[in-house]
Amino acid sequence: MKKFIGIDLGGTNVRAALIREDGEVLCVNKSASNPEKGAEHVVDVITNLVLDLPDYQQAQAIGIAVPGLIDSERGVITAANNLAKLVGYPLTSTLSKRLQNKPVYLANDGKAAAIGEALAGAGKGKKIVYYVTISTGIGGAAVIDGQLLMGRHGFAGEVGNMIVNQKDKAYGIMNKGAVESGASGTAITRKGKEKISQDIQHAGEVFDLAKEKHADAIAIVEEMTDDLSNLLSSVSLVIDPDLIVLGGGVMKGKDVFFDRLEEKWKSKIFDAMTDAELVSAQLDEPGIVGAAMYALSRESD
Amino acid sequence: MKKFIGIDLGGTNVRAALIREDGEVLCVNKSASNPEKGAEHVVDVITNLVLDLPDYQQAQAIGIAVPGLIDSERGVITAANNLAKLVGYPLTSTLSKRLQNKPVYLANDGKAAAIGEALAGAGKGKKIVYYVTISTGIGGAAVIDGQLLMGRHGFAGEVGNMIVNQKDKAYGIMNKGAVESGASGTAITRKGKEKISQDIQHAGEVFDLAKEKHADAIAIVEEMTDDLSNLLSSVSLVIDPDLIVLGGGVMKGKDVFFDRLEEKWKSKIFDAMTDAELVSAQLDEPGIVGAAMYALSRESD
Repeated sequence: MKKFIGIDLGGTNVRAALIREDGEVLCVNKSASNPEKGAEHVVDVITNLVLDLPDYQQAQAIGIAVPGLIDSERGVITAANNLAKLVGYPLTSTLSKRLQNKPVYLANDGKAAAIGEALAGAGKGKKIVYYVTISTGIGGAAVIDGQLLMGRHGFAGEVGNMIVNQKDKAYGIMNKGAVESGASGTAITRKGKEKISQDIQHAGEVFDLAKEKHADAIAIVEEMTDDLSNLLSSVSLVIDPDLIVLGGGVMKGKDVFFDRLEEKWKSKIFDAMTDAELVSAQLDEPGIVGAAMYALSRESD
Repeated sequence: MKKFIGIDLGGTNVRAALIREDGEVLCVNKSASNPEKGAEHVVDVITNLVLDLPDYQQAQAIGIAVPGLIDSERGVITAANNLAKLVGYPLTSTLSKRLQNKPVYLANDGKAAAIGEALAGAGKGKKIVYYVTISTGIGGAAVIDGQLLMGRHGFAGEVGNMIVNQKDKAYGIMNKGAVESGASGTAITRKGKEKISQDIQHAGEVFDLAKEKHADAIAIVEEMTDDLSNLLSSVSLVIDPDLIVLGGGVMKGKDVFFDRLEEKWKSKIFDAMTDAELVSAQLDEPGIVGAAMYALSRESD
């Protein structure tokens, strides 16, 4: 079975792993990333982590997932709050030179999680997988026949900006009624503060109150599933996926909203489509597995 | 240059053409289809039309476009109001036997128009093309790297059912607030009857009144562009196409709504995406050219 190296590079830590093509994690090494020390330092850290992986030489290619905007063709980070000194740096080509000239591919961490779930997680074996992450923001990605759909500008999947209602205000640069402004973790927390108490600090508290039958909390969750089901319905009508995978931190509260969301989504697509599935993300390690699966997908492009 | 045969089979007429891979129509034959006489009769008619095309033997494959639901894998019509006697009939295999065992591929006429526009019309040379038809109903299709995206159930592109507003009622089997119920030709006519006069017979009359600054007609067109721009924005955020092509009978009134629609659509996507284009369909013969391009796409699948 082929092997790949997956690297999950964040502002605090970096993890490097040797991963089989079926997604099995064979070995993981971890270190502080210290990106404030500059790009060369980060390259040294990553190189050492990889060299310390037993049998790393067997890997066919290397994938790196980073939290930021990236130019996947050039292998360069174009914007990243926590990796500012790496912006514009030739990360993939430098790493490739340090690591036996193996091919190195760079992906946004959300896109990496999507292809990880599609190829090695909840979507394994499915032809068309749509991944939606519900976290601070909302994003998505389509994986079709094992390949990420990037779109003309790399914006395919920026579904957080999708207009799902006419009643909400516009927040930031997002559309009036955008799903991210109504159903993200940030939005649930904001609504909790507005409608329940200024003491609400995160979405989980609203979900806990909904479990305790707090009427305002239940109403917030109902709005959330209204908005999200419109998003999922629109995604289904555009690409008719076999499976939609929901990931992201807000899924910690899925007990409160998942069944209701699934019911509303199925009511908003055609009956013949309702054997498509809605499931939770499965990967314990979406960063490293996703990075490795991204490398696999690029190698079989 | 390769050649293909495109067949546009309708309830009244059938057209068969020899078409070059660049979309150039070399020769067209036409006949009454008389589908009420049964499937064997229709096969005879099509066979004779093809045999009468000079150099039809040079064609690599044959595509057929029909107005109905089809099973593209089995090459069988599964539902078609105007071709009822052909439902379930082994159309592609029978035609193939009659025509030198050439490969024969069957497509819905909307999907055929989409791939025709993508490969030989307004989308020629573009990587990701989305086609939207605004007619009695509203439908769409994505063509990615020269291939139609069909989806799990063949429902990819059934975007007429996309929820674009919360104010409209539910009509038929469509979602409450579905774009087809607010912005199709049928919807414009219905709104014209409700808000202007019971004498309104078709959408074109509403557009004419809007040109004459009739306030209610202008309001109907404003709602239409609100709804359609939400649809186009959602499509852009899901697949980030290079180009969106608008076709269908309602485009005869484009002078009244196209520029406003484009403006609203661009205001509802990210600034970095606004170099994507919104254009009118270009093909004079979407049926035959689309059928031929569908055959081409299946042969290069």
